[in-house]
Amino acid sequence: MSDDVTGKLRDAIRSIPDYPKPGVIFRDITTLLGNADAFHLAVEELAEPWRGKQIKHVAGIEARGLILGGAMAYCLHAGFIPIRKKGKLPRKTVRIAYDLEYGQDELEIHVDAVNPGDAIFLVDDLIATGGTAIAAVELIHQLGAEVAGAGFIIDLPDLGGAKKLRAMGVNVHSLVSFEGD
Amino acid sequence: MSDDVTGKLRDAIRSIPDYPKPGVIFRDITTLLGNADAFHLAVEELAEPWRGKQIKHVAGIEARGLILGGAMAYCLHAGFIPIRKKGKLPRKTVRIAYDLEYGQDELEIHVDAVNPGDAIFLVDDLIATGGTAIAAVELIHQLGAEVAGAGFIIDLPDLGGAKKLRAMGVNVHSLVSFEGD
Repeated sequence: MSDDVTGKLRDAIRSIPDYPKPGVIFRDITTLLGNADAFHLAVEELAEPWRGKQIKHVAGIEARGLILGGAMAYCLHAGFIPIRKKGKLPRKTVRIAYDLEYGQDELEIHVDAVNPGDAIFLVDDLIATGGTAIAAVELIHQLGAEVAGAGFIIDLPDLGGAKKLRAMGVNVHSLVSFEGD
Repeated sequence: MSDDVTGKLRDAIRSIPDYPKPGVIFRDITTLLGNADAFHLAVEELAEPWRGKQIKHVAGIEARGLILGGAMAYCLHAGFIPIRKKGKLPRKTVRIAYDLEYGQDELEIHVDAVNPGDAIFLVDDLIATGGTAIAAVELIHQLGAEVAGAGFIIDLPDLGGAKKLRAMGVNVHSLVSFEGD
C-alpha cells in the first residue's frame, strides 16, 4: 500500500482526545465511512490480498465490523456471517466470553453459519489488545472452520493484538497504524 | 424485478415459527447474507434504481441495517452513515425516541454526518410497522437532509410501515414481501 493511500485514509479518521476518558485518544472512523472515496478505498485495500483466493465467507464483529464486513463480502462476492453480542441471533449458537477493560462480554455465531474447513475472512474496524478478535477466531475454530485472514482499518500496535492474532496463525492486514496510543 | 429473482431471495430467507414468541414467524436473513449469490443479488437489486442518481450517503440502521448499508454504500460509491442506538456515537448527535412493542428505544445520528440538502438513501433489513424507519427519516430531516429513498430486503405489508413511509414522500423499495405476518 502506498504512503499516499495510507495518508488519505489516516486523514479521513477523526481523532477525539480524552474520549471516552481523560488521556485516551478515540479514533473515530465515522468520518472515514462517510467519505465515499475513503470508504471505497479502504474496502478495496482490505480486499486486495484476498481477490481470487476463494474466500467463502466474510465474518464481521458487531457493531462497526458489520458495516465493513457487509462491504467486504459484497466486494469479494462472499457470504457474510454476523458475529454478534449475546442474545441477538435467532438460531442455535456457540458463545464465548471475553474480557473488557471492566468486566466481560460475550460473542455468538450461528452453529450452521460455516462448514468445517471453510476459509473465513474476519473484519473489524480496529484492533487494539485483540480480545474481541481472538474471541471471534476461537468461535470460528469451534465450528471447525479456518480464519484465512483478518483485516482492520486501524491497528494500535502498542497494544499487541495484531501480534497475538499472528501468533495464532492468522494473516493480519491493517490500513492505518497509530503508535503511542 | 423478475419472479425468478424474488423467488431466489425468498428461498434464501429462513422462517422460524413461534420466535421470539408463539404465533410469530421470524424472518431470519442470516441465511440470505451467508449465501454469496443471494447477498450479492440483494445488494444489486436494491442499488439498481439508484445508480447514477448522485446518492451522496447511504444510512444504515443498527444492527442489521449496518451490514446491508455498508454493502450498498460500497456498491453505489457513496459514503456510509451509521444510525445507532443511543450512547454509541462519540460526537455530538441528534436523538429521537420511538416506540417498540414494549416501551421505547432511541436512535442517534452525528449532527455533522450530513449537510442540508444532501440526498440520503436509507436501508434496513426489514420494514414492519415502520417505527424504526420513520424515526430514522425524522432524524435525517432534523439535519436538513432529504431521504431520497429507502430499501429493505423484507416488507411485511400487512403492518403498514412501507405505506406510512411513502406517505412521508419517501421512495420505498423492498425485495420480498411476506403477507399474513
